[in-house]
Amino acid sequence: MTASLLLRNVRPYAGATIDILIEGGRITRMAPDIQAPAGITVEEGRGEIALPGLVEAHTHLDKSLWGQPWYVNEVGPRLLDKIDNERENKKRLDIDPARQSARQSIQSSLMGSTHIRSHVDVDTEHGMWGIEGVMRTRDGYRDIVDIELVAFPQSGLLRRPGTLELMDEAMKLGAEIVGGLDPCTIDRDPKGHLDAVFELCQRYGKPLDIHLHEPGEVGAFSMDMIIERTRALGMKGKVTISHAFCLGTPDPALIDPLIEQLAELDIAIMTTAPASRPAPPVKKLLAAGIRVCSGSDGIRDTWGPYGNADMLERAMFVGLRNNLRRDDELRLALDVCTTEGAKVMDLAGYGLGEGCVGDLVLLPGETVAEAIVTRSPKRRVVKRGKLVARDGVSIRTAP
Amino acid sequence: MTASLLLRNVRPYAGATIDILIEGGRITRMAPDIQAPAGITVEEGRGEIALPGLVEAHTHLDKSLWGQPWYVNEVGPRLLDKIDNERENKKRLDIDPARQSARQSIQSSLMGSTHIRSHVDVDTEHGMWGIEGVMRTRDGYRDIVDIELVAFPQSGLLRRPGTLELMDEAMKLGAEIVGGLDPCTIDRDPKGHLDAVFELCQRYGKPLDIHLHEPGEVGAFSMDMIIERTRALGMKGKVTISHAFCLGTPDPALIDPLIEQLAELDIAIMTTAPASRPAPPVKKLLAAGIRVCSGSDGIRDTWGPYGNADMLERAMFVGLRNNLRRDDELRLALDVCTTEGAKVMDLAGYGLGEGCVGDLVLLPGETVAEAIVTRSPKRRVVKRGKLVARDGVSIRTAP
Repeated sequence: MTASLLLRNVRPYAGATIDILIEGGRITRMAPDIQAPAGITVEEGRGEIALPGLVEAHTHLDKSLWGQPWYVNEVGPRLLDKIDNERENKKRLDIDPARQSARQSIQSSLMGSTHIRSHVDVDTEHGMWGIEGVMRTRDGYRDIVDIELVAFPQSGLLRRPGTLELMDEAMKLGAEIVGGLDPCTIDRDPKGHLDAVFELCQRYGKPLDIHLHEPGEVGAFSMDMIIERTRALGMKGKVTISHAFCLGTPDPALIDPLIEQLAELDIAIMTTAPASRPAPPVKKLLAAGIRVCSGSDGIRDTWGPYGNADMLERAMFVGLRNNLRRDDELRLALDVCTTEGAKVMDLAGYGLGEGCVGDLVLLPGETVAEAIVTRSPKRRVVKRGKLVARDGVSIRTAP
Repeated sequence: MTASLLLRNVRPYAGATIDILIEGGRITRMAPDIQAPAGITVEEGRGEIALPGLVEAHTHLDKSLWGQPWYVNEVGPRLLDKIDNERENKKRLDIDPARQSARQSIQSSLMGSTHIRSHVDVDTEHGMWGIEGVMRTRDGYRDIVDIELVAFPQSGLLRRPGTLELMDEAMKLGAEIVGGLDPCTIDRDPKGHLDAVFELCQRYGKPLDIHLHEPGEVGAFSMDMIIERTRALGMKGKVTISHAFCLGTPDPALIDPLIEQLAELDIAIMTTAPASRPAPPVKKLLAAGIRVCSGSDGIRDTWGPYGNADMLERAMFVGLRNNLRRDDELRLALDVCTTEGAKVMDLAGYGLGEGCVGDLVLLPGETVAEAIVTRSPKRRVVKRGKLVARDGVSIRTAP
């Protein structure tokens, strides 16, 4: 599934115009006027911007309604309303994880993403339906996108007996990452929840990526307990905290000590840059040396209607949420949706340089900032040296 | 500049499929299978959603950089940095208000807006350059969009002597609305500033639309002084407060008494639904009976790179900022960008009904919520019965 390709006249990060030669799926040369190896496919770049493949570091491939009839949302306001509504209606709404994850993955690829980390529901009503479905997509769509799975106890871990055993089964099946969820406010047993998920990490030698929506002081308390276990178990660099709304609390006395420890233990933060919630301060975290990635979260699901899997739109949201206006600040927003995401997902050979894997996206624009604010749909996407999407048309057909 | 048109097979607000007959610029009939009057232009609607023309109720037509080479933003972080940077560089950057307002107006029309309220800078360095330029566009592009001008003392009113006289000149020239700006934090003389702008309103019999970025208690103080004058001068229903960040303060004791008086005096609120600032709570204000409109604010200018003049994207921002997820909530977000804006701008004959002016937009989608989250670029825009834009191509050419 690797290919060779000569991209003529592209501008990496909106810089000088050069050619990029990809051979056997790897970038072997970046220079002006590269002589074309015999028989190689040549793609004219027309002076467009070249960026490394976008990184979708937090989504839920198993439960998008993409391609389904419109779902009229009449759900109640609490987090548990949304969780229960979804679990109870998944089969009735025909949210088949294999089909829906394939649809969303193709959409992601069209928008320029070459890597996806997907949380996948594990619960006692659906067992391995989600995990097996997304694994089918992971295996079946490797030509356009790399997917990794987080086993995710969406409905709670301890409050619904049997879920922990299913999490164990998901890891045995090959989920790459252990998930978790609001140890205080959902599971209502922070010690029990965190001991359980960290134990799974230890048993399978896998990283943790835990959803933490808890706000303010209670979120800070849970985060502190995650930090404590990360340190005690020697899991430095192996933990991601997703959402981390508590870091948006405007109280340095609360969050600065947390940030210091996150940096010390190389704990990564994922933020969708939500407009309606307190959100982690991206510039401050990056300045502290913390890896910060982003993702679409749920895309058009029973939770809400938003989302199109465009990580350049997400970069715009990161910019808008964090009041990033200068061109050098917009570049940070792009980094969060590319290189920072790659660091969180520990992607070998990621980047736009000689020796890197040939995963990239071409799109029009004068500068990186313009590419973000314009978000042209006219994109060309290259995966391991193969052109897999052009102007909204994928080489794969959605089921 | 009125025309007749028969729209076949459209779905007003995503409801049942009907025809819409527009004669002499007005909607005369909405029903299935209307017989075409002899010689009328017929447009096949293909079952698309019909919405009333979108209302851009707050922007700055005179200073967009739309269509100019990319402006690399390296401006400092304070509000005054941005104000001074802009004023000092406007001529150097060739930001000609006539040309730039024409460009943005065409872009607005392409996205479906049929009405624009534009604040226009009035300052001692540029005099009437902005006002005259935007008036030229107002007069020259009436076929595609209706524009009204707010004379806006962007650099301060009292802190820069001579500005008040220029504001008076702008009103004499025919600006439709008096503007103002942060009476405490920019002009540093709330009594002086507010007395001056209200006096202009009285002298010319015009409404007020004042920018109020001031946060928390200081913003509440300024708002209280605006309320006081609105009441004393009998200007009920004639005042709009734009931005009103102070209403986003999470303290009911501070904001509830303000909301009560805003409702009593029919003072309208404009919010861009900013992700990085406290913002007025849209649902709560609407529930209190307050008119709430929205706008793009600055579009790709020296203040920041964002914006594309799409009021459906703005409806999405209103939804994201206010955590609107249900279909009935998304409809509120659309209302803010259509009917509510029309109420604020006091537009006669606005709406999608028999007798209304034939201003509307057609676009694909199953539901109103889907139209907002998808924001299809495939739009057809009708102004006074004439098709003025189709799939991103306007009947007018940008200068």
